[in-house]
Amino acid sequence: MKKITLDYTNIQDAVLLSELSGKLESYSEIRNMIINKTGKGNDFLGWVDLPDRISDQEIEEIEALGKRIREESDLLVVIGIGGSYLGAKAAIDALLPAFKKSGEGIEIVFAGQSLSPRYLKSLLAHMEGRRVTVNVISKSGTTTEPAVAFRIIREWMIAKYGKEEGCRRIIATTDSSKGALRTLADEEGMKTYVIPDDVGGRFSVLTPVGLVPIAAAGISIKDLVQGARDGAAQYRDEADVTKNPSAVYAAIRNILYKKGKTTEILSNFEPQLHYVAEWWKQLYGESEGKENKGIFPASCDFTTDLHSMGQWIQEGLRNIFETFINVEDSGVKILLGREEKDLDKLNYLEGETLEFVNRQAFLGTASAHRDGGVPNMTINLPDISAYSIGKLFYFFEWGVAVSGYMLGVNPFDQPGVESYKKNMFALLGKPGLEKETQAIREKLAGNKLIV
Amino acid sequence: MKKITLDYTNIQDAVLLSELSGKLESYSEIRNMIINKTGKGNDFLGWVDLPDRISDQEIEEIEALGKRIREESDLLVVIGIGGSYLGAKAAIDALLPAFKKSGEGIEIVFAGQSLSPRYLKSLLAHMEGRRVTVNVISKSGTTTEPAVAFRIIREWMIAKYGKEEGCRRIIATTDSSKGALRTLADEEGMKTYVIPDDVGGRFSVLTPVGLVPIAAAGISIKDLVQGARDGAAQYRDEADVTKNPSAVYAAIRNILYKKGKTTEILSNFEPQLHYVAEWWKQLYGESEGKENKGIFPASCDFTTDLHSMGQWIQEGLRNIFETFINVEDSGVKILLGREEKDLDKLNYLEGETLEFVNRQAFLGTASAHRDGGVPNMTINLPDISAYSIGKLFYFFEWGVAVSGYMLGVNPFDQPGVESYKKNMFALLGKPGLEKETQAIREKLAGNKLIV
Repeated sequence: MKKITLDYTNIQDAVLLSELSGKLESYSEIRNMIINKTGKGNDFLGWVDLPDRISDQEIEEIEALGKRIREESDLLVVIGIGGSYLGAKAAIDALLPAFKKSGEGIEIVFAGQSLSPRYLKSLLAHMEGRRVTVNVISKSGTTTEPAVAFRIIREWMIAKYGKEEGCRRIIATTDSSKGALRTLADEEGMKTYVIPDDVGGRFSVLTPVGLVPIAAAGISIKDLVQGARDGAAQYRDEADVTKNPSAVYAAIRNILYKKGKTTEILSNFEPQLHYVAEWWKQLYGESEGKENKGIFPASCDFTTDLHSMGQWIQEGLRNIFETFINVEDSGVKILLGREEKDLDKLNYLEGETLEFVNRQAFLGTASAHRDGGVPNMTINLPDISAYSIGKLFYFFEWGVAVSGYMLGVNPFDQPGVESYKKNMFALLGKPGLEKETQAIREKLAGNKLIV
Repeated sequence: MKKITLDYTNIQDAVLLSELSGKLESYSEIRNMIINKTGKGNDFLGWVDLPDRISDQEIEEIEALGKRIREESDLLVVIGIGGSYLGAKAAIDALLPAFKKSGEGIEIVFAGQSLSPRYLKSLLAHMEGRRVTVNVISKSGTTTEPAVAFRIIREWMIAKYGKEEGCRRIIATTDSSKGALRTLADEEGMKTYVIPDDVGGRFSVLTPVGLVPIAAAGISIKDLVQGARDGAAQYRDEADVTKNPSAVYAAIRNILYKKGKTTEILSNFEPQLHYVAEWWKQLYGESEGKENKGIFPASCDFTTDLHSMGQWIQEGLRNIFETFINVEDSGVKILLGREEKDLDKLNYLEGETLEFVNRQAFLGTASAHRDGGVPNMTINLPDISAYSIGKLFYFFEWGVAVSGYMLGVNPFDQPGVESYKKNMFALLGKPGLEKETQAIREKLAGNKLIV
């Protein structure tokens, strides 16, 4: 069984071993809080046993649907935002090739993840002349971004396919019984999947929210779920914290945070993991950023960003730490050759693989950043496979529950996300908010400082 | 003439007016340092007058080349990293539609911006069967990432086109006289463009480094340069700081930094500006992140990331400030309609545009973040046009020179970028580094902490 390991050699200059062992002592208590559901936010712990609860039958049914979508479509438009977007995007970007061969296989695109008119216009043009299926994902059906996009795209689908076939080509992932999208889907006879009540958006990648688009991309969700199951066995079920990389990751980040390392950079050396980091930013930022505390989650794609953020990381303000994702086997062998004239002086690498060069860049970077005062850890990921990505998802989910409880916050709520929405609804003049509308319009009409 | 303005209304809770006027007093001195080239790093000030120095003839020549590239190619592969990548990527992503119509027009892709074997393998497959032109960008020709990619891609080009036509389809942007790429290009008769000696990588977007790929994408570099020229007139030539949004931006960020706001988030509401933020991260991070100081540059795409980073920004640790880029005219009108059953409760928006909704989201967010303790500024960008993007480039370039000098660092060097390279070369066993190779191998072979 391929295991994820955590190498924390490069935190030694910043963390005393006694600090680590002290922190780890609290783990068994926190683990019990999660498993026995006695901590804050315990009505949103459905993710803990989720990989075990998914039946083989459910997986097969979704994979069969995915196959059908691929057969009948050139394009799958996935409509969703936040947790209804990032999990699927992370898995699909990680597991499909960076460039899709034109004319071959389905293309997966996303909508309703912003309010940009430029993006939506371009997407609608992109849909022209192609066989389209839509997967709309929203618990309530009234979240502004996906609701607006879905109105426009549903109209497009019905104009193109007629009502019956248009609705047959729309899959709704939503609440089991209530809400605007559930009502609409039932009325129009759309196929539906259920978002469980006890799984928050950022933990939903292993529900149909993530599984349907991932399966439609042709990725084995059976392997993905198996990875998460084995991850649960290794992180959730492992009471001995010294054998638990997810718990040690959580403990170290809490120690570093308390020492003023208030920003964490998750850095990869495989750019296809870019959206795994975006998914992680929601998971960790939304779980911990509250009560005026929490580690700021940032990310880099290396070596690309060594030529942009590298200077700052090496020599800037020393308030950061770094976590690398090191892919142990890229699965791709590109050999470097020899040139007659060695103008670029690369002949000494003859016979080496590009992967070898990339790995020395990683090792050199981790060492240089440690020397520069940036404590860092490495998550060793065996490969970029559905199995390993599924395990990594659980690694981070378990880690953030532990880390959030160590910080003393409720890792499962997100009260601050409403603030911009309240203002936006008032500014839009939403019925029922007349007072708020007047108040914010007056506020924003106040004295402006503009240059 | 379309102007960029800076709205700093939402910093009022964090900055006293007296602090701002105090800071602005130092501006005239700093402005003189830049113009008279008397400050640190003054041998890299070629960017200051660059927009004025580019002749109409040069612009026409590059635009003609761009036209030829589009006619002869389905794919332009741009090989470069850091400043030889981000400027072109920023302009092209901002100015072309989010989705390219398949089969229509040239596709611009990038290589040599990482060492990922998975990426390069997928790119090589993507090149098959298509008419390819290459633009390789490297001052020395020996920077590892582009040099490795160029070896492999050049071999591919010669295998496909033969030596003569293969080399004719390669454009080299490099040093005027020395270095591996200059030598090779001259020997093989490749078309070349010159990277000026006095313009650092992160300031090079308005040299052929950026202009060639941007012109090949079909974007008017004439408009882009004109925007930068007018930007220079408005920021560099404007001695009255109270009329200079670029200088005020620099002053405010310095004040906020000294008050513990050590991370800046550059947030857009048009996702096509994503790589403008990546370009900005290099410009600001690399210019200021040294001597253990500097603002950490981060970025968000909204409203997307309000559903991931929004919670942290609203209620997390209060060590951040935010700069919004507000596009005043998106140029796209998508009207919201009416539905018989108003299940999603969006009928109250009937007759409004998507742009209007997006703008209320921006206004609501800026206000909510201020109320949450995040001081913020807004850069009002008139539109997303080549002219405005060119002006924005100069806005930020001028701003970082001022900001860097206010911080007391040399904004034009990047000594820390070498650290990972030194380690990497030693680990790769580069000839001449035998001692370093032995030293780092011994160091890394030391005791490991792994769980």
